[in-house]
Amino acid sequence: MVKLVAVYKKPEDPAAFDKHYFEKHVPLAKKMPGLIKCEIEKVTGSPVPDTETPYLAAHLYFDNKAAMHSAMMSDAGKAAAKDLAGFAGKYVRMFFTEVVEA
Amino acid sequence: MVKLVAVYKKPEDPAAFDKHYFEKHVPLAKKMPGLIKCEIEKVTGSPVPDTETPYLAAHLYFDNKAAMHSAMMSDAGKAAAKDLAGFAGKYVRMFFTEVVEA
Repeated sequence: MVKLVAVYKKPEDPAAFDKHYFEKHVPLAKKMPGLIKCEIEKVTGSPVPDTETPYLAAHLYFDNKAAMHSAMMSDAGKAAAKDLAGFAGKYVRMFFTEVVEA
Repeated sequence: MVKLVAVYKKPEDPAAFDKHYFEKHVPLAKKMPGLIKCEIEKVTGSPVPDTETPYLAAHLYFDNKAAMHSAMMSDAGKAAAKDLAGFAGKYVRMFFTEVVEA
């Protein structure tokens, strides 16, 4: 299993961010073919809080790298990426990961 | 559901890190009472790689905040925290999160 992970810094306007994120972006992302699971978490704190503490993270699970890359290159993936760049380009960082133990 | 998330920067000696992490630290962490699931992922890349790209992340799932805090304050939690400080103190950052969609 592999994941596409998106980690968001705290936005300037969390309420506006949340509205766009949950009402528009998540439904777009969930249209990606091959998506097995989409887990979204909000950061509530840290034992050692600092300015780098993230705001929110999304974990998109796919069977393997090929499925993940196909999803990103699909029409749905491109629409989600375009939307992301528009409302969260300066807040988001993305990673590819492989689940090694679950 | 809540999570205790540990994100590790790339260590100076990944092989030595992995050996300690998977053979000693993970078994210690898994002894924490109330732990529902422990998912470990290795970062394989990024659409925009940079020096902040993490090396590995662990996601420890608990029913709620009270269960998570009890686990951290248990003997097993303290042993895991002590071990962590010893081998990965300068690589790890930890967060508390709440799963808002899964």
